[in-house]
Amino acid sequence: MQKTTPCWGVFELTFTANSGLKNPFDVGYNVNFQAEFAKDNRKLTAFGFHDGQDANGQEVYKIRFMPDSQGEWTFQTSSDIPALDNHKGSFTCTTATPNNHGPARVNGRHFTYADNTPLYPIGTTSYAWVHQPKALRDQTLESLKQTKFKKMRMCVFPKHYDFNHNEPEIYPYAGNLKEGFDYTRPNPAYYNLLEECIQDLATQGIEADLILFHAYDHWGFAKMDADCNHRYLRYVISRLAAYPNIWWSLANEYDLLRHLDTQDWEGFARIIQETDHANHLLSIHNCFGFYNHSRPWITHASIQRQDVYKTTEYTNEWLDQYDKPATLDEIGYEGDINWGWGNLTAQELTRRAWEGYVRGGYPGHGETYLSEDEVLWWSKGGQLKGESHARFSFITQMCEETGPISYLPKRSPWDLPIGGVEGKVYIAYFGFSRPRFRDFYSTHPYFQTSNLPEGNYKVEIIDTWEMTITDCGIMAHDKLRVDLPGRQYMAVRFTKWA
Amino acid sequence: MQKTTPCWGVFELTFTANSGLKNPFDVGYNVNFQAEFAKDNRKLTAFGFHDGQDANGQEVYKIRFMPDSQGEWTFQTSSDIPALDNHKGSFTCTTATPNNHGPARVNGRHFTYADNTPLYPIGTTSYAWVHQPKALRDQTLESLKQTKFKKMRMCVFPKHYDFNHNEPEIYPYAGNLKEGFDYTRPNPAYYNLLEECIQDLATQGIEADLILFHAYDHWGFAKMDADCNHRYLRYVISRLAAYPNIWWSLANEYDLLRHLDTQDWEGFARIIQETDHANHLLSIHNCFGFYNHSRPWITHASIQRQDVYKTTEYTNEWLDQYDKPATLDEIGYEGDINWGWGNLTAQELTRRAWEGYVRGGYPGHGETYLSEDEVLWWSKGGQLKGESHARFSFITQMCEETGPISYLPKRSPWDLPIGGVEGKVYIAYFGFSRPRFRDFYSTHPYFQTSNLPEGNYKVEIIDTWEMTITDCGIMAHDKLRVDLPGRQYMAVRFTKWA
Repeated sequence: MQKTTPCWGVFELTFTANSGLKNPFDVGYNVNFQAEFAKDNRKLTAFGFHDGQDANGQEVYKIRFMPDSQGEWTFQTSSDIPALDNHKGSFTCTTATPNNHGPARVNGRHFTYADNTPLYPIGTTSYAWVHQPKALRDQTLESLKQTKFKKMRMCVFPKHYDFNHNEPEIYPYAGNLKEGFDYTRPNPAYYNLLEECIQDLATQGIEADLILFHAYDHWGFAKMDADCNHRYLRYVISRLAAYPNIWWSLANEYDLLRHLDTQDWEGFARIIQETDHANHLLSIHNCFGFYNHSRPWITHASIQRQDVYKTTEYTNEWLDQYDKPATLDEIGYEGDINWGWGNLTAQELTRRAWEGYVRGGYPGHGETYLSEDEVLWWSKGGQLKGESHARFSFITQMCEETGPISYLPKRSPWDLPIGGVEGKVYIAYFGFSRPRFRDFYSTHPYFQTSNLPEGNYKVEIIDTWEMTITDCGIMAHDKLRVDLPGRQYMAVRFTKWA
Repeated sequence: MQKTTPCWGVFELTFTANSGLKNPFDVGYNVNFQAEFAKDNRKLTAFGFHDGQDANGQEVYKIRFMPDSQGEWTFQTSSDIPALDNHKGSFTCTTATPNNHGPARVNGRHFTYADNTPLYPIGTTSYAWVHQPKALRDQTLESLKQTKFKKMRMCVFPKHYDFNHNEPEIYPYAGNLKEGFDYTRPNPAYYNLLEECIQDLATQGIEADLILFHAYDHWGFAKMDADCNHRYLRYVISRLAAYPNIWWSLANEYDLLRHLDTQDWEGFARIIQETDHANHLLSIHNCFGFYNHSRPWITHASIQRQDVYKTTEYTNEWLDQYDKPATLDEIGYEGDINWGWGNLTAQELTRRAWEGYVRGGYPGHGETYLSEDEVLWWSKGGQLKGESHARFSFITQMCEETGPISYLPKRSPWDLPIGGVEGKVYIAYFGFSRPRFRDFYSTHPYFQTSNLPEGNYKVEIIDTWEMTITDCGIMAHDKLRVDLPGRQYMAVRFTKWA
C-alpha cells in the first residue's frame, strides 16, 4: 500500500476476494463496496470497482482516491463482501508533483486549477483517438505537443459514423460485434488503456473532457437499458474520478440519443455527483437545442452552435443567460468534408474562435480534412493537417499574457466586440471587417465608438491570422486613432499604462 | 404640344401665367392645378408644378403625364389660376420606344416591367452622385456601363456625412448654406439636373430608386417642418412621376430622422399615393428596426440587415413574413473604411449577395474604399475600384438564365440553402463552406439531404467568385454525388432534363 501520495495524485487500494457472485461487476453497484477517507473534519467516500482477475484467477477489487490536501488521511472500507469489508489504514498526502495543479474548478465565468493557477481550456476534439491502434495514438500525442491545447474532447465508447468504420482493438465491454456484448461486464483491459491515455494527456497538461454517452454507435452502447447505463456510470466514475485531469461530459449531442429524456439525464447526473468524490467539472453538450445549462449540477455550458451562420458571436449572451463559464465545444471544423459543420477554412474557424474568445468564452478546435485512410483528426487524431491549430495556440498565448477576459458591452460598439478587464486591458476584435483605421475616442452622430477611460494606453495591433503583435506605442485616450492594415482578422489590445 | 407620346414616355404640358402669388410654388400644392387624362373608361390625374421663370420673366407651369396604353388620350386642366384652368386637348399614345418596358411592377415576390418583361433589380448605391460635378457624374455613368446593374439607390437631397464634405454645385432649394434656404421654394435648376440624371440611367436600363428623405444633412433639408415636407413631396412626385424608371424610396434609414414618427411616414405615403398617377414602386428603408413592411402602401421590403454577422441568410424569413419582394438594399459595402458596414472584402459582399439571391431576394452592391479625394462609390460614384461588382453582374446573368427563383425550404438541408423553381431548376449555394463533394440523394441517420424529384438533371458547378459555370453532364436523381473543388463560394445548378 502506498504510504504517501502527492496531492491530487491517485491513491489506490487493491484487494483480491472471491465474491461468490455470478457477476463480480455487481460489486460497487448493487453490492456495496466503498471506502471513507477522512482528514481533519472532512470525510469523502470513494467507491470501489471490480478490475477483473489477476494472474492467479483471483477477483481483483480496487478503490481509487484523489487526496486534495496535504497531511494524514485515514480510510476504512465497507462492503457486504467480507473480504472487502473493514480494511483500515492511512497515508500521507504530500506536495503535488510539479505539473499537477489539481482538477479544474469554476471561478465565476472562468476556470482555474484547484491550486488557483488559471486554466484556459482552449482545446481540441478527437472523439475516438483512444480506439485507434497504438501507432496512431502515439502520433496523436506527438501532434498535441505542437500545440498549446489544454483540453481534449474524447469518448469513452468507440465511434461508428461517417469516416469511422474501423473496429477498435479492445471493446469497453465483454463480447464482440458478431455475438454481442454483455453490458453488465465492463472490460478492464479497455479501461486500463483509457486510463493510460488520460495519463498521457495529463503528462502534457491536457484535460480529458470525457464524453460518457454519444449516439454514433453500432454496438449497442448507445442504447443500453437504464440499469446498464447506471452500472456503466457507477463503474466509469468509480474508476476514473481519482485522475485529476478528468472533466465529465455527460453526452456529446445528448439530443441525438432519442430514447433518453430529461429525467434520464438528470438521473445520470445524480449518479455522477454521488459517485465522484473529486467533484470534477460536469457538462452536457447539445446537437440541436441546448440542455438547460442553468441546472445546478452543470458546472459550465458546453456548447455547440445552433445556427450555421452566427455562432460564437452569441457567446456573451450565453454567458449572461447561464452565468457560468462557456466552453465552445463545436464551433465547426476546419476541413473539406461534405457537411457544413466540417468544411470551414482555417480562417473561418479561427475567426469563430476569436469571436468567442473576445466575448469571454473558450473555443474548441477541430479538423475534418477528407482523407483516403479515413484518419480525420476530429475522430481519430493522427497528424494535424490544418492551419487553425496554431492560431488556437496563439489565443492561449493571449490568455496567458492577458488573463481571463470578459465581454464589455458598454465598450463595444455595434460593429466591434471588445473584451477585457475594465480599467486594465481591452481587446477589440475586427473579425471579417478590414478597416484601414479606427477611432477609439470620438463621438459620432449615429454610431457609438469605444471610448476608453481617461489615461494612457499601450496599443498593440494583433494579427490573429499571422500571429504577430505589433507595438504601436503609448497613446492617450483622446487620441486613440489606430491605423490598421486593411486586412481581415485583426485585433487591437489596449493595456492601461501609468 | 406633343401630338404623340410613346407608351411610358413623358407627355408634358407647359403654360406660362402670372399667378399673382407671392410664392408661385404654391401652385400644385395649396393652389389647385392639375389635369385629368382620360382614355376609354380610365381617368388619371396628374398634378402640375411651377418650373421657375422663362427667359421673358414669365412664370412657367408644367404638367407631366406618363400614358400607359396605346391610343387616344384626352386631357383637361383645372386650376384656381385662370390662365392654367380648362386647357383641353388630346394626344396619341404610340408603341413604346425599344428599350422602354414601362415602370417596375410587383409580381408575387418578384418584379417585372409594366410590359411583363422580367426585371431583376440587382443594383448599386451611389447616394449623392447627382450632387457631384459633371465630370464625376459622367464617370459614374461610364462605370455603370461596365455592369449589369438594374437599379441605383440615390438621394434627391445632397449628403453631408463622413467622406461627404463637399457642397453641391446646385441646391434643391433657393438659398445657400450661409444665409439659409427657403424650403417653400424648390430650385427648378436642380430638378432639371436630377431629371437629366434619371434619364441618363433610363438610357442604360437602370431604375432610379429615388430616396426622398435621409438624415445626413447640414442644410436643414432633413429637418423641415410638416408643411415643407408635404410641399416637397407634392413637388417631387408631380415633377418626376412621369419618368418610367422611378422607384420611390420614402427614406433611407427612416429611423435616423428622429423627429418623424409613424404618423408622419404614413402621411407622406398618402401624399405620394395621391400624387403619383403612375403608381411607381414605393418602399421605406431602415437603419435599426424595419418599418412595418406589411403596410399596404409598401410594394416591396427594402431592407438593411439588422445584424452584423447574419444578414441575407434571413431573406426567406423576410419574404415569408411580408409576402412581398425584398430588395436587400444595404447588406454592407466592399471597402476598407472604419465602420463595420463599410469594410467588407469583395468575397464577403459577394457571399451575402448569393445568400440573398438563392433565398429569393435581390441584393444590392456598394463600395466604400478609403480615398484621399473622398470619392467613394457609395456616395459619389466615380470609378468602380472593387471586385464584387462583376460578381453582382454574374448574379444578374444567373437570373436572366434561370428566371426568378424562390427559396425551397423542403429541398434545403440545415447547412445548404437551395433556391429554384420546384420541378424545374434548383440552385444550391455553399457560401463559406468548401466541401470536396456533396450527395444530393441519400438519407443519413442525422442529417437531411437535398433529395430532388425523380428524373435526370443537367448538373453545373458554378464558381460564384471566378464566375465560371462547369457542365457536369446529365445525372440521375439517385446518383447525384457532385464532386466539388474544395473552395469557398461554389454553387450547383440542377436543371431538370427530359
